[in-house]
Amino acid sequence: MATAADKKARIGVLGASGYTGAELVRLLIRHPRAELVLLTADRRAGQEMRQVFPQFAPLALPRLQSIEGMDWAAAGLDLIFCALPHATTQKVIQQIVNVLPAIRIVDLSADFRLADPAAYARWYGHEHHAPELQRQAVYGLVEVYREKVRHAQLVANPGCYTTCAQLALIPLLRAKTIDPDEIVIDAKSGMTGAGRAAKEEMLFSEVSEGFHAYGVGHHRHMAELDQEFALAAGREVVVSFTPHLVPMNRGIFSTIYVRGLKRSAEDLHAVLQETYAREPFVHLLPFGQMPQSRHVRGSNMTFIGVAKDRVDGRAIIVSTLDNLTKGASGQAVQNMNVMLGFPETMGLEQVALFP
Amino acid sequence: MATAADKKARIGVLGASGYTGAELVRLLIRHPRAELVLLTADRRAGQEMRQVFPQFAPLALPRLQSIEGMDWAAAGLDLIFCALPHATTQKVIQQIVNVLPAIRIVDLSADFRLADPAAYARWYGHEHHAPELQRQAVYGLVEVYREKVRHAQLVANPGCYTTCAQLALIPLLRAKTIDPDEIVIDAKSGMTGAGRAAKEEMLFSEVSEGFHAYGVGHHRHMAELDQEFALAAGREVVVSFTPHLVPMNRGIFSTIYVRGLKRSAEDLHAVLQETYAREPFVHLLPFGQMPQSRHVRGSNMTFIGVAKDRVDGRAIIVSTLDNLTKGASGQAVQNMNVMLGFPETMGLEQVALFP
Amino acid sequence: MATAADKKARIGVLGASGYTGAELVRLLIRHPRAELVLLTADRRAGQEMRQVFPQFAPLALPRLQSIEGMDWAAAGLDLIFCALPHATTQKVIQQIVNVLPAIRIVDLSADFRLADPAAYARWYGHEHHAPELQRQAVYGLVEVYREKVRHAQLVANPGCYTTCAQLALIPLLRAKTIDPDEIVIDAKSGMTGAGRAAKEEMLFSEVSEGFHAYGVGHHRHMAELDQEFALAAGREVVVSFTPHLVPMNRGIFSTIYVRGLKRSAEDLHAVLQETYAREPFVHLLPFGQMPQSRHVRGSNMTFIGVAKDRVDGRAIIVSTLDNLTKGASGQAVQNMNVMLGFPETMGLEQVALFP
Amino acid sequence: MATAADKKARIGVLGASGYTGAELVRLLIRHPRAELVLLTADRRAGQEMRQVFPQFAPLALPRLQSIEGMDWAAAGLDLIFCALPHATTQKVIQQIVNVLPAIRIVDLSADFRLADPAAYARWYGHEHHAPELQRQAVYGLVEVYREKVRHAQLVANPGCYTTCAQLALIPLLRAKTIDPDEIVIDAKSGMTGAGRAAKEEMLFSEVSEGFHAYGVGHHRHMAELDQEFALAAGREVVVSFTPHLVPMNRGIFSTIYVRGLKRSAEDLHAVLQETYAREPFVHLLPFGQMPQSRHVRGSNMTFIGVAKDRVDGRAIIVSTLDNLTKGASGQAVQNMNVMLGFPETMGLEQVALFP
Repeated sequence: MATAADKKARIGVLGASGYTGAELVRLLIRHPRAELVLLTADRRAGQEMRQVFPQFAPLALPRLQSIEGMDWAAAGLDLIFCALPHATTQKVIQQIVNVLPAIRIVDLSADFRLADPAAYARWYGHEHHAPELQRQAVYGLVEVYREKVRHAQLVANPGCYTTCAQLALIPLLRAKTIDPDEIVIDAKSGMTGAGRAAKEEMLFSEVSEGFHAYGVGHHRHMAELDQEFALAAGREVVVSFTPHLVPMNRGIFSTIYVRGLKRSAEDLHAVLQETYAREPFVHLLPFGQMPQSRHVRGSNMTFIGVAKDRVDGRAIIVSTLDNLTKGASGQAVQNMNVMLGFPETMGLEQVALFP
Repeated sequence: MATAADKKARIGVLGASGYTGAELVRLLIRHPRAELVLLTADRRAGQEMRQVFPQFAPLALPRLQSIEGMDWAAAGLDLIFCALPHATTQKVIQQIVNVLPAIRIVDLSADFRLADPAAYARWYGHEHHAPELQRQAVYGLVEVYREKVRHAQLVANPGCYTTCAQLALIPLLRAKTIDPDEIVIDAKSGMTGAGRAAKEEMLFSEVSEGFHAYGVGHHRHMAELDQEFALAAGREVVVSFTPHLVPMNRGIFSTIYVRGLKRSAEDLHAVLQETYAREPFVHLLPFGQMPQSRHVRGSNMTFIGVAKDRVDGRAIIVSTLDNLTKGASGQAVQNMNVMLGFPETMGLEQVALFP
Repeated sequence: MATAADKKARIGVLGASGYTGAELVRLLIRHPRAELVLLTADRRAGQEMRQVFPQFAPLALPRLQSIEGMDWAAAGLDLIFCALPHATTQKVIQQIVNVLPAIRIVDLSADFRLADPAAYARWYGHEHHAPELQRQAVYGLVEVYREKVRHAQLVANPGCYTTCAQLALIPLLRAKTIDPDEIVIDAKSGMTGAGRAAKEEMLFSEVSEGFHAYGVGHHRHMAELDQEFALAAGREVVVSFTPHLVPMNRGIFSTIYVRGLKRSAEDLHAVLQETYAREPFVHLLPFGQMPQSRHVRGSNMTFIGVAKDRVDGRAIIVSTLDNLTKGASGQAVQNMNVMLGFPETMGLEQVALFP
Repeated sequence: MATAADKKARIGVLGASGYTGAELVRLLIRHPRAELVLLTADRRAGQEMRQVFPQFAPLALPRLQSIEGMDWAAAGLDLIFCALPHATTQKVIQQIVNVLPAIRIVDLSADFRLADPAAYARWYGHEHHAPELQRQAVYGLVEVYREKVRHAQLVANPGCYTTCAQLALIPLLRAKTIDPDEIVIDAKSGMTGAGRAAKEEMLFSEVSEGFHAYGVGHHRHMAELDQEFALAAGREVVVSFTPHLVPMNRGIFSTIYVRGLKRSAEDLHAVLQETYAREPFVHLLPFGQMPQSRHVRGSNMTFIGVAKDRVDGRAIIVSTLDNLTKGASGQAVQNMNVMLGFPETMGLEQVALFP
């Protein structure tokens, strides 16, 4: 007999035709406590999900709908994942909350990640369209804000680059073990991080057999890092951060150069060891060993390694995760699990697909 | 309270350091009714699985052992997956069966796929080392031999190329809808199909950014095809078969050219439609649509498409699967499920990882 | 002292912002007898070539212009390469010829490849816009039409798929050594063959780590094959032809299945051996050996191999070339060399770039 | 009539079966003043080059020989390229020089790059086997040591990682514009940099679809950097250096983080601009623009970009080259050109192969 404990949450995914949307569907369709009842994709409205992502052909899924004119109350939703583009997001979420004041939302865009309206306006060049929601939103890095996430109505799911860097650095900044003025993050991403929009520079022939940096010196993700690193360090932190694109589909790999504050590389490893001893989705390798992005592919894991640099007093930290899973949709499901009182790892147990 | 129905089967994997071994562990570690109690890998004996495949680092797994001197009775095994090299396999399985007459075995090598000892000797150049077992072995293409598999002690798991071609062609040969003398199979495989042995021709720099055929005219996999196609057609069938290597990790993709016997391409599609209407791991696309290998990656699905050729009376059939999953370890777990009376899809529900 | 023999031809490239345009520039900038004096690219007009293809940054090249309002007479051109899209091409070339009746043109589009106006109309759904030029155009497969090319004003440069298949099959059809009703061409192409237009299905994340067929049963390239194969065989020839996309940048690889007419596979090899003994850009491997696409990358070579099939009376032929070089721009330069009386291999001596 | 000026140099390549060997042959076979008269490859001795690298099949090349028992005097060599493994190199070159005191040699190994015998012994764990030659060897970074190279008998061709970093940093260290204690070099390499030896970790399936660092904190290449940076700065310089592997064939891409000494990023750009204004193989992009590795593929160019970091006083420099060309064999040919008095760019004019 089905008990209340087994009741499934009714879930909607807004923006199901992008890569993070597909990843949400991949995870939620096999989640024991989630029922996918609403999928939207404005440009593909009326189509079946199999027309947009053929891997779902054997599965029963709701037809794609448009957000336009949606009767939000009719769907009987418990929680919404919002994987819409920047700016659109703010307006849509505000409309939904107006109609459904008790709805729970996990937003995968950057729209609600900055708590400070002034910082938002500075980075994005306009006032926030939903400032009250912005104030209430909880930054959804579960390993740092688990208790706040539990009670949040609106969770701002962190970015992929920033999740990867924060999980490595926040414990060290909090413990004041590294110099906040000497942090260099050299970050590399697989191509899915750039999304599914048809752009010349994302074509296979432009991207394969090569490597490049982009947004050098002024990448928008830094706003989120600045905010969270300052909270962790109790002071302003401005890091060097350079993103690159790797000819692979999935993965964020961050090589982080730090200088210890009278602490050895071994000390830094010990701080991370203690922090993550019981975290299900962060795995610290033995000191001196470094992870590879391929070994977290398709899983919700973050692998972290710490080694001594040859320059005295410095350490090198490598942090890697799958940008679509722990860097986006997997972390979003992790947030859902915490928000709805499910076991945190439910539906996220898949082992990485390697090779 | 745990009931008999929930009791886990005690499972061993022989040859866990290869790609099919890793894929077995990936699937079995999350299988609700399987408990991994024995992993072997002769050259890596004594090591942890994480040293061989770092993606397993966060998981508790038995340490790798050597087959040499193994006390087979001590492990209390219910079923063994054997992913050992050709020839070794025959001897090891014979030894195990000598000690454990009731053990169930799924063998992933080619050693027990040929039922006819003479055919075996002709293709492999020597007598079979376990001829009695060879006679008893059941060819484990579940969609064709489900009932035999249920009661088999030893199941010979089919090869990746051959599974892909058979699922497309056996129903058509059985229904006598195509000319058995006019079949061309142009098959393409991802690189994991070549295994993990360190060979110059498998290096990244030799393989990426290029395409080639191999074993043209004399590939060993044909023995298995000859046997099964003859059984299906009720006469000798000799097909053209050319394997190629694609610079990708996973996937078999077979483009099959056939001539209908007074049947149209639509008729062939209808035969497949009827055959696979209720099969969980074979999905037939609507007539005229063709599948892509990437949409079955990491899943146990086979996707099949049928289209009319421009040459009158001919059809083109495309069949695709993941060589490590439905083409090897996923199919092996499917066999286990049938052999042990578990639901056939148990532990194999994962949706393909795309992108 | 510069003699007349050393005088450089003044060359224009129309459509220099696509991949075949870039490949033309790569080859012509180092051609001892060519001087690049005009580059056009309508959407990038006014820009430097380095903004469109940064590899040219260290080189002096003319700024990109628009075709709109071009004073064709002013440029003093000897020969034009036209790498414009289908249909546009016909109109532009007609305009140029109206102004410059003696200009020589190599057209890389499909617009002038079909000699028969009725065939053109049937395949493309509209009358040709320059029917007189269509009649005069010479099909630029140098190995077959060298003498005609020498005197042609307008050369229709063959397609990449079709060059690859024709070089393997035309000698065999001419010699009546194979059955024209039993030809299957399973063709695979690198991604540059799909051009540089920003389309979702050409994104890196859609294409890498997978394999698929497209245009099954109705690919437009067949018109060209039908025409040339009929001329070679002296009768209608309708082949099976299926194109596929490989996750690599460059290369066409055709696996061709044929049935000999009382000829062995060795006989077919001998016919090709005799045909190509002195051709600089076709290399036949020893009987039974098969080429790889990577070994012609960036070169103007076609590599061909022939092997016996296991089905009695059949042979398998593999033909491979670089779709941007011998399959497009290299062949166009080869045509130029013949048209202008330069040594045929001039500027095309580069060895393949492998690895 | 052939004049003395046109006389070809007689060239030998030792170790022709590796990737740098093949790249030397690719370049030298088209070099107007080089004649390949000797190719060695011990394990492949007696074979044709086409059996080892099929792209050379259409070309006439000397058969591969073994070094064992070679009569060095008989070949009439003017210059030898040595692409042999570490340690073997020292002994072989000493033997050759003993027999041919006037021979010119370009060595592509690391054996003669360290001028200080003590440094060599410290890094490699044993005394140098040819200490006198070690003292005489000239470090072959032409842009820095052009005059010394001109008169050198033995040139130690720099490594790929180190060429890439040195061309970016040596002018800045010399000009004392950056802090030598605050240099972080995050370096990424294509797979050919790891050579052609059959190792499990270099298999396609291990490498594709992933990214990783290696040798963190203790990479041997640092010895060479330490030496050259100290010479440039006039003091000890110890940099952070982390190499990574990218799933691509060719390319080194170094992201370099520096702190200006009362100099802005624009100042650093100006220093490089002045240094490289007339260098044929170093191209500096306009300030703020960053190069991509694919745009130097197959060419002998180094592309460098400089941008302002968001951290005050810091700059980010990106340097990229093809590890087999400017990072190895192209640079070796450049050295040969200087040594033999040929134009420095002779045989190295090829434009990068993109896409």
